[in-house]
Amino acid sequence: MVSPAIPSLGLALLGSGRMSHVYGPKINAHPGLRLEFVFNPNHASAERAAASYGGRASSDLDEVLGASSVDAVVIATPTDTHVDYIVAAAMAGKPVYCEKPLDQDLDRVDGCLAILKAHPVPFMLGFNRRFDPDNNAVQRAVANGEVGDVNFLMSTSREPSPPPLDYIRASGGYFIDSQIHDIDLLCWIAGERPDKVFSAGSCMFDERIGAEGDVDLAMTTMMMPSGALAHINNSRACTYGFDQRLEVFGTGGMVQTSNQRNDPLIRWSKETTEARAKLKHLFLERYDTSIFHALDEFHQAVTQGRPPSATEHDGRDALAIAIACDRSRREGVAVAPAY
Amino acid sequence: MVSPAIPSLGLALLGSGRMSHVYGPKINAHPGLRLEFVFNPNHASAERAAASYGGRASSDLDEVLGASSVDAVVIATPTDTHVDYIVAAAMAGKPVYCEKPLDQDLDRVDGCLAILKAHPVPFMLGFNRRFDPDNNAVQRAVANGEVGDVNFLMSTSREPSPPPLDYIRASGGYFIDSQIHDIDLLCWIAGERPDKVFSAGSCMFDERIGAEGDVDLAMTTMMMPSGALAHINNSRACTYGFDQRLEVFGTGGMVQTSNQRNDPLIRWSKETTEARAKLKHLFLERYDTSIFHALDEFHQAVTQGRPPSATEHDGRDALAIAIACDRSRREGVAVAPAY
Amino acid sequence: MVSPAIPSLGLALLGSGRMSHVYGPKINAHPGLRLEFVFNPNHASAERAAASYGGRASSDLDEVLGASSVDAVVIATPTDTHVDYIVAAAMAGKPVYCEKPLDQDLDRVDGCLAILKAHPVPFMLGFNRRFDPDNNAVQRAVANGEVGDVNFLMSTSREPSPPPLDYIRASGGYFIDSQIHDIDLLCWIAGERPDKVFSAGSCMFDERIGAEGDVDLAMTTMMMPSGALAHINNSRACTYGFDQRLEVFGTGGMVQTSNQRNDPLIRWSKETTEARAKLKHLFLERYDTSIFHALDEFHQAVTQGRPPSATEHDGRDALAIAIACDRSRREGVAVAPAY
Amino acid sequence: MVSPAIPSLGLALLGSGRMSHVYGPKINAHPGLRLEFVFNPNHASAERAAASYGGRASSDLDEVLGASSVDAVVIATPTDTHVDYIVAAAMAGKPVYCEKPLDQDLDRVDGCLAILKAHPVPFMLGFNRRFDPDNNAVQRAVANGEVGDVNFLMSTSREPSPPPLDYIRASGGYFIDSQIHDIDLLCWIAGERPDKVFSAGSCMFDERIGAEGDVDLAMTTMMMPSGALAHINNSRACTYGFDQRLEVFGTGGMVQTSNQRNDPLIRWSKETTEARAKLKHLFLERYDTSIFHALDEFHQAVTQGRPPSATEHDGRDALAIAIACDRSRREGVAVAPAY
Repeated sequence: MVSPAIPSLGLALLGSGRMSHVYGPKINAHPGLRLEFVFNPNHASAERAAASYGGRASSDLDEVLGASSVDAVVIATPTDTHVDYIVAAAMAGKPVYCEKPLDQDLDRVDGCLAILKAHPVPFMLGFNRRFDPDNNAVQRAVANGEVGDVNFLMSTSREPSPPPLDYIRASGGYFIDSQIHDIDLLCWIAGERPDKVFSAGSCMFDERIGAEGDVDLAMTTMMMPSGALAHINNSRACTYGFDQRLEVFGTGGMVQTSNQRNDPLIRWSKETTEARAKLKHLFLERYDTSIFHALDEFHQAVTQGRPPSATEHDGRDALAIAIACDRSRREGVAVAPAY
Repeated sequence: MVSPAIPSLGLALLGSGRMSHVYGPKINAHPGLRLEFVFNPNHASAERAAASYGGRASSDLDEVLGASSVDAVVIATPTDTHVDYIVAAAMAGKPVYCEKPLDQDLDRVDGCLAILKAHPVPFMLGFNRRFDPDNNAVQRAVANGEVGDVNFLMSTSREPSPPPLDYIRASGGYFIDSQIHDIDLLCWIAGERPDKVFSAGSCMFDERIGAEGDVDLAMTTMMMPSGALAHINNSRACTYGFDQRLEVFGTGGMVQTSNQRNDPLIRWSKETTEARAKLKHLFLERYDTSIFHALDEFHQAVTQGRPPSATEHDGRDALAIAIACDRSRREGVAVAPAY
Repeated sequence: MVSPAIPSLGLALLGSGRMSHVYGPKINAHPGLRLEFVFNPNHASAERAAASYGGRASSDLDEVLGASSVDAVVIATPTDTHVDYIVAAAMAGKPVYCEKPLDQDLDRVDGCLAILKAHPVPFMLGFNRRFDPDNNAVQRAVANGEVGDVNFLMSTSREPSPPPLDYIRASGGYFIDSQIHDIDLLCWIAGERPDKVFSAGSCMFDERIGAEGDVDLAMTTMMMPSGALAHINNSRACTYGFDQRLEVFGTGGMVQTSNQRNDPLIRWSKETTEARAKLKHLFLERYDTSIFHALDEFHQAVTQGRPPSATEHDGRDALAIAIACDRSRREGVAVAPAY
Repeated sequence: MVSPAIPSLGLALLGSGRMSHVYGPKINAHPGLRLEFVFNPNHASAERAAASYGGRASSDLDEVLGASSVDAVVIATPTDTHVDYIVAAAMAGKPVYCEKPLDQDLDRVDGCLAILKAHPVPFMLGFNRRFDPDNNAVQRAVANGEVGDVNFLMSTSREPSPPPLDYIRASGGYFIDSQIHDIDLLCWIAGERPDKVFSAGSCMFDERIGAEGDVDLAMTTMMMPSGALAHINNSRACTYGFDQRLEVFGTGGMVQTSNQRNDPLIRWSKETTEARAKLKHLFLERYDTSIFHALDEFHQAVTQGRPPSATEHDGRDALAIAIACDRSRREGVAVAPAY
């Protein structure tokens, strides 16, 4: 329950496309967040989102970033525009919450980081899965020493069905688009980043994905400086829903998560016993609460004057690792990420 | 997520004791509920609760029930005052949400029901456990025919530790105080109420409870008109937390709930494997969300002009059954409830 | 693994009907048991069983009981002949393993017990479910104090489908035929027998069973001297197989069994997640190993010169309780068993 | 249950060390196997094993292989002697069951295979884990098409504690000694063998293992011709017992195994809920029944005149893959096995 004394933060939501429908309702549901503006260069699009979620529609970035009612911005625009908006917001002195990834290109990311260093504002990268209660409980258990020294980290992440080909083409490839979440989670939990990675991939669901040079099945090994070994497996299709599992094994034991389902019942029938419901269908359902918790972390960090817990440096590390994975997959050798 | 068009309902919270700390935060968290008054004959007590949860403190019932800003009342006072406040609110034409039970005495309940019939207002009895997502999923599955014809209904409800003796003395006994929840849940799920009940009880945890003529272990069989048989077991102590399980078995299969825990992890250690966390500690933690959902049902029913789904008649039925259980326990015979 | 030094016990199997096909293979599989005779007054029937399982066929009881190669008898004849064969074997000084129940009539049982007292031989009643590894683990855990003082004992026992009406008619009723197993298990685990019982029953699967005055759903409460309360539920139909579960709850925690299945896999599919296979179909599959372990207990007891662990007195107690349950079901009052 | 008509096979057990204590009791428990000889060049050692398990002790290989009572041999000698005994048995025309691996050296294996080709006898390699009921159920489910086209195969295999350093030194390294089991299982289930493998390893439990150039943590990716990707993780220490899990994910769903435990109970206590017992401690306990089933497959194959289902070619494939894994681990590149 929220105390009435919670400080209020005025937000500009940059972007009014698909992700605005994810962020809009969470901003409205958070008692400390006010939606002041919805921005889109396409004014009509901004107006449609503002009609749904409140705030004023604007296609004038200077107006938005210059408004004193705007305490911070949430960037939910196409990936290739993230860096430009981050830079503009930083120059305007506005704290930034930005959807992952920062960019698909390390050079552009490094340029962005230089500007953030020169014009420091609180910055949070939207690695929302860290704020999912299941994933979060794993990180806390490991940080509390429940498993002792970490030996293995495993992340399983399987989507119900492949996205449209247009999405694939703009995605930067399976590792940068999707495995980057698993990479960030495991590095965050391990408290270290890999010296080297090896990845393999193949295309078994939609041959058009393979024709683009991408994969729809991916498997990665990350070799950590401590000696710990991490495994990630991803698939673009999964008949039983959106499979999201973590396992961390160490000298003191093991912790695992157990997925989230459409309902909590245990069913016994003519066909099966002790059956659970299908998994929540997609990230929108599965990580719905994590987006809220991520915005809450951003709210707390900004109102308390501290850097948020998922930073631009985490974003660069995860991108560098994902790029190394993709190269490893193509070349068949272990690759050291370009930190 | 709540639409901005949600109608607003002004509430007076009657009572500023223990249960006000349960209702206050939920009222504040609900976007369609406004806390207008906190009432207590003891004005200082009302002021303390109002300071925490908002609304004006009042020790003047006429002021509260006469205020045009008050659209409905929530009664969270001691059990033996429920009927008086219900009657006063009904005479004032205010819709009522009342904590269970209506009263411990069937005659007083019947008097109250006569007044509610003569002065009809939307009335909801706070059988919040119906609105718990787990219990609710069972009811929907059974109503949807998932288990076919119902043969057995089972409710397990075990508290972590016995309440203070003063609480026991005022409680009306274990069946009326506590088993009434299980009775209501099973009748609601079954869609019928028992012809006869048999109960047994004993005292194994706190002999002072036995010295009061009460029990701290209870087991009941309910014989339904359809032929279905229902089982309830309750204990006043449970070392692993607040155990809350339902099982419904029928000609088409079985559904079960699986408890709620302090965290979602699966743990493997030197001692055990695939272990789950301890259960949520008490009803405050376990049924926290159900209170919110119950208030939401009340909000929807009142703003839509329909009777809420848990009625005064459900309350009378459950009380009549609980009284029959207590008599059965004392006399060693099956007893027909006084519907 | 069995040591080569295991002593050999020559058996006469009395009866060559349905249960002989259960006992025959287990006797052959046990390295310490030799099948010397298969007896049936119908010589052709004895010959058929002997052809399958070995031993000599005989329709001459004196020959069988007089043979020096016969160290003990296994009685697997119709229930109403058990007492006669027990008496004959006891008079001949042969140790006896007898299928449950001793008889459906307490007076006949008492006559049999008097003869066993006058002509003492090692005697074991075939309460094979005690020797099932799951049930056995519960008893050991409780005996080892894992759950502290016992508060609740629960036994769920549901058959896949009702037996033929002829079987029902000869069965002595659901309590004596079937619930007697649950009664014996719970009393054995509790280490005490009830002061009083209350039972309810109904007929929802096969109305011809009801027309015989019997039930196909049964629920019993047993009130133990310690204050512990025991619950049994039985049904003659169960769509997901042969459901066999125990739960024992005490001041120190709870232990449960989890059924046995057709295969050990966990399945995730379009319909369900983490689903287990259907339960083993019937007692023949479910308790197959328990029969072997029961014969092994008999073998050990006889060769070590001690009484087997499931005695004629356990059989009489369970029968007295089952008879009390049936009376309670008919009369609607708690009944004290005639110990 | 075994039919009395089961044909009898006389065995010579070569080797009377550690593994003879595994094979001896299973041979005795199998109604179709007779232990005719226990052979060891050290006659005293052979005599000790023969005293325990029966058969005649011999240190004269010619006597053993020339005996007409010996229908087949079981080789349970040190790994570096396997090939010599296989060759001797094949030259003598005796069917062979040989503990895995064939040898640690591919050239020696190829020499052995050439002799087996020239002197064909029924030959079975002791990949006993295929005959474990859990693993076997996975293979059957996949072969029956339950998971559709296979996308991922996962094998987790973790031992409770590292073996002695002497064992490590003679083992051929972690991949050849231990991961070879997982490799064989996954290839057998997949019905294909990898084009390339990548492995990583580290040493976190016993630094003396690392000083030998070996690892105590290993992780492998196998890239299958179909596009399927397989993952194996192994550790030489595991605080909760001997962790053995398989998972196969495909276009139609997923099947998993769930480990085997010291007892079947579900426990609820002050610390945890729904906890299962620790895992069976080591391969001796965990795969006890699989050894019996493997011997039974050998018995059936020989007495039915057909090649056993786990062949010398499976053994060579698994060894070639394990050698490739070890090289990949050292060189940091994906390696194609030398089939």
